Amino acid sequence: MSFDPRVFKRYLPILDWGSKYNANAFANDGIAAIIVTIMLIPQSLAYALLAGLPAEAGLYASIVPIMLYTVFGTSRALAVGPVAVVSLMTAAAVGAVAEQGTAGYATAAITLAFLSGAMLVTLGLFRLGFLANFLSHPVIAGFITASGVLIAASQLKHILGVSAGGHTLVHLLESLWTHLSEINWITLVIGVLATAFLFWVRKGLKPLLRKAGLGPRLADVVTKAGPVAAVVVTTLVVGVFRLDQHGVRIVGEVPQSLPPFTWPISSLALLKQLFIPALLISIIGFVESISVAQTLAAKKRQRVDPDQELIGLGAANLGAAFTGGFPVTGGFSRSVVNFDAGAETPAAGAFTAVGLAIAALFLTPLIYFLPQATLAATIIVAVLSLVDFKILKTTWGYSKADFTAVLATIVLTLISGVEVGVSAGVILSIALHLYKTSKPHIAEVGLVPGTEHFRNIKRHEVLTTPELVTIRVDESLYFANARFLEDYILDRMAEDKALKHVVLMCTAINEIDSSALEALEEVNSRLADNGIKFHLSEVKGPVMDRLQRSHFLHDLTGQVFLSQFAAMKALGDVTGPTPATDAA
Amino acid sequence: MSFDPRVFKRYLPILDWGSKYNANAFANDGIAAIIVTIMLIPQSLAYALLAGLPAEAGLYASIVPIMLYTVFGTSRALAVGPVAVVSLMTAAAVGAVAEQGTAGYATAAITLAFLSGAMLVTLGLFRLGFLANFLSHPVIAGFITASGVLIAASQLKHILGVSAGGHTLVHLLESLWTHLSEINWITLVIGVLATAFLFWVRKGLKPLLRKAGLGPRLADVVTKAGPVAAVVVTTLVVGVFRLDQHGVRIVGEVPQSLPPFTWPISSLALLKQLFIPALLISIIGFVESISVAQTLAAKKRQRVDPDQELIGLGAANLGAAFTGGFPVTGGFSRSVVNFDAGAETPAAGAFTAVGLAIAALFLTPLIYFLPQATLAATIIVAVLSLVDFKILKTTWGYSKADFTAVLATIVLTLISGVEVGVSAGVILSIALHLYKTSKPHIAEVGLVPGTEHFRNIKRHEVLTTPELVTIRVDESLYFANARFLEDYILDRMAEDKALKHVVLMCTAINEIDSSALEALEEVNSRLADNGIKFHLSEVKGPVMDRLQRSHFLHDLTGQVFLSQFAAMKALGDVTGPTPATDAA
Repeated sequence: MSFDPRVFKRYLPILDWGSKYNANAFANDGIAAIIVTIMLIPQSLAYALLAGLPAEAGLYASIVPIMLYTVFGTSRALAVGPVAVVSLMTAAAVGAVAEQGTAGYATAAITLAFLSGAMLVTLGLFRLGFLANFLSHPVIAGFITASGVLIAASQLKHILGVSAGGHTLVHLLESLWTHLSEINWITLVIGVLATAFLFWVRKGLKPLLRKAGLGPRLADVVTKAGPVAAVVVTTLVVGVFRLDQHGVRIVGEVPQSLPPFTWPISSLALLKQLFIPALLISIIGFVESISVAQTLAAKKRQRVDPDQELIGLGAANLGAAFTGGFPVTGGFSRSVVNFDAGAETPAAGAFTAVGLAIAALFLTPLIYFLPQATLAATIIVAVLSLVDFKILKTTWGYSKADFTAVLATIVLTLISGVEVGVSAGVILSIALHLYKTSKPHIAEVGLVPGTEHFRNIKRHEVLTTPELVTIRVDESLYFANARFLEDYILDRMAEDKALKHVVLMCTAINEIDSSALEALEEVNSRLADNGIKFHLSEVKGPVMDRLQRSHFLHDLTGQVFLSQFAAMKALGDVTGPTPATDAA
Repeated sequence: MSFDPRVFKRYLPILDWGSKYNANAFANDGIAAIIVTIMLIPQSLAYALLAGLPAEAGLYASIVPIMLYTVFGTSRALAVGPVAVVSLMTAAAVGAVAEQGTAGYATAAITLAFLSGAMLVTLGLFRLGFLANFLSHPVIAGFITASGVLIAASQLKHILGVSAGGHTLVHLLESLWTHLSEINWITLVIGVLATAFLFWVRKGLKPLLRKAGLGPRLADVVTKAGPVAAVVVTTLVVGVFRLDQHGVRIVGEVPQSLPPFTWPISSLALLKQLFIPALLISIIGFVESISVAQTLAAKKRQRVDPDQELIGLGAANLGAAFTGGFPVTGGFSRSVVNFDAGAETPAAGAFTAVGLAIAALFLTPLIYFLPQATLAATIIVAVLSLVDFKILKTTWGYSKADFTAVLATIVLTLISGVEVGVSAGVILSIALHLYKTSKPHIAEVGLVPGTEHFRNIKRHEVLTTPELVTIRVDESLYFANARFLEDYILDRMAEDKALKHVVLMCTAINEIDSSALEALEEVNSRLADNGIKFHLSEVKGPVMDRLQRSHFLHDLTGQVFLSQFAAMKALGDVTGPTPATDAA
């Protein structure tokens, strides 16, 4: 038995870049890691909160997963960990099977990560990465926008200091409304100030720093550290004045430890309940991650391998499942930071993991007094940059079908939740695509005088002949439009008694499936019943190869012409708006 | 307010043909009606048995439904009533919610007919007949074949005279096996003889009659009366020898009455349970019916209107629901008989209904002793003509994707039942179609020397230039293949450092949706990052119109060329296997 050692390199990209690793790359990766670590500490705590989990789960979900992605991933800049949309989907999925705050909730979260990891690895091994392509860009854009709104709405309770819940916009707002009397005013002040500060950091600080003479890179680093400043200041304020005794909710005790080992498979029933949510999370997470990875790779003329990326993300999620985390994926903002900070290899990710492990071991007592309102502010400011309703305008102008899919995705995500929203978007965009191709554009064409070109008789002055009709279909023929073409030709035949020849011009036909073949056979024999011959012209090579494997060409009453001009010459004198002699 | 009286003619085709009705048409319709009535009596009793209902339900389902189709239908030859496949699907659907023989069973059957009727009328009013096109021909063929096998297997119990049940092949055979010891030998003899006789009538009788000097039409009539002969003889034998007292199961007492009025809406829960089965029955029934109607209409250069047909079939099913029937549709064999017998207008159907009403009023006492084995024999002989595994061979030779869909439909129908089978077939054929278009054929093309034509560089000796690559995609660009093209171009760019121009040749592109547009924008900007210009050539009119409504053409680094030859001339000197000068 022989074994090809290249298989190692294929499934372990680390062997490739690892062998060329040097001091220079180490320095660059190290600097990037420090910046990303500073950014990730508040972010991972915040996304744990969003997912409905204790703060430490956010740190755990960022340590082992990043390391595993370093080994199996192909992107040089992708930073893996908890991200906003996937955390929201986690909250929706886990919230449906367990009560927040219970042990069952944390178990369901790791089970979800396990399922998602297993699915991603499976998809990768079977090279099924293309499945993600069935999420159309407008549907993704609509979904991300609606999710951003949902996430921001879900964090309002932390800003107001009330208990509220719900996974749809209506439920969230309704729940907030009924609890409005319980507002904690100190929390509200902290939350509003933190939010305002973070917005200002995002929009106003960087230009200010540049004006003050800081270099662009340093200005960037300082800006990214904004959330850390908010965390430090609000934690100090709450701790010094013991505002927690006045109802300000704090993160509280977080165990000082490395990620624990957790066993994610507790019951078959739970696996079954979480299967569909896990599938949706896997696909959304993969699509988000691969988009970021490809964009960053292309900037350096590098490529990522989508199927290996599935394995990398799958390994990361399995890592999260066994170490007390929750579903993770490649995040947009942190990957861009990583890239901009000069990360050269996936090792930057491993160093980030080390930084977060140190944080988990030594820094957690420092965040005891961190108010949840600050984390909520971090989330709100981060996700509102995802919200962009412009996609509605763009698609409205370009394609009504795409517009319909986006609108449905946004509306359903907001009123029925993330799972319904994204499923409806996918199904609707497939359905609309099939609908469009099921009613293809069909034109009757005639000869443009003085040329060998044929054009639509309704749009151009062309030459035709009464005994011959030439039909051009601008679509491949398959089961969904086979009968449409059949109906068209037979209707045409029924209304035109002078007809002797029908030519199907096949320039735009890339495929003829069995159903379409049967429809053509039916057309051929129905036309024959009425003394009309059926011809084809300009059939493409692969289509012709296949037709030759069937009986159709044998039964065909007419001929197959290489060019439409040859068909016209053979089948009839041309007459039309301009006499042929004048046109010459 | 104005009202267009043509709307009456559209929804009531009877106004059209009825106004031209004359004595000649009456005579022809009358003769056809007599022949079809004789054929329908045993058939309708048998299909009621197949659906698990009392015999009279079969007669009821053939009276009012036919009359309503006469008013609303557009086919001149279609004969509506219980048919094999729909009866089998009825048995499966109703059997899942009620015990056979109970009042609940009959109620569920009329509820199913009501739902199906309502759905068909709705689809018709909204002109959604095209939905049936998503059932591909091979899937239908596979489904009908597998259903034929299931139906024949389900009737074996009546031939053996045992009690058995089940809606999948495995369950049916298992159930027969466990009851094998209970065989009633007299029933078996009757059943086997009746089956053999009917097979002989089908295959051997007609040639014999022709040899004996009968005209072709008369021979046909006599042949079609075969089942009636079997009914008469076996009923007499059982009655005279009182074989029912020896365990031969008979039809027994059938009420002598016109169809009763029944109210089909008993509970919301039942409507909900039967919703999906009703939808499948509606679609399968419509597809079967419209195929027959169109085939027969085309023979006389007539047309049927699919959307009005939905209304006609829907009315027929509503009729069945309110008069103690069960789901009906246009049947293949009876419609062909009707057509061959010379039916000229839908009035032939109305006359058939009168014939069956007379049978229901006066003839039911005569079938008291009719053995169920005879009806089973009628069904078996009728459905085995539907069984045709040739579709597997045809599709294997022509298209592996179609073959896969057929095989899955057949296997799943047999092992998991009709609903799973047909649903899987539809979903799989859509999925395979999407899969195929998601990985379109992409060719790099070069100039055929001495012409203005461009061909695949891998298949032809063509001229190319190192700085320019021309890519032809043989598929419309949409979300499922947008990333595939993007990957292809970016991979191509990553491996070829000499590249300065990429031309996308758009001859086969009938559509570019928003996702594909974004992918092209991405390609354009990634190529620009690397100093490569992106061009388009031979863009179709409608595609160009739409691109002009976007920012893409404004951002495009290169140009849009009317022809690929113009692009080649503008962008580079050609070099290649044959020098350009030699080719001229």
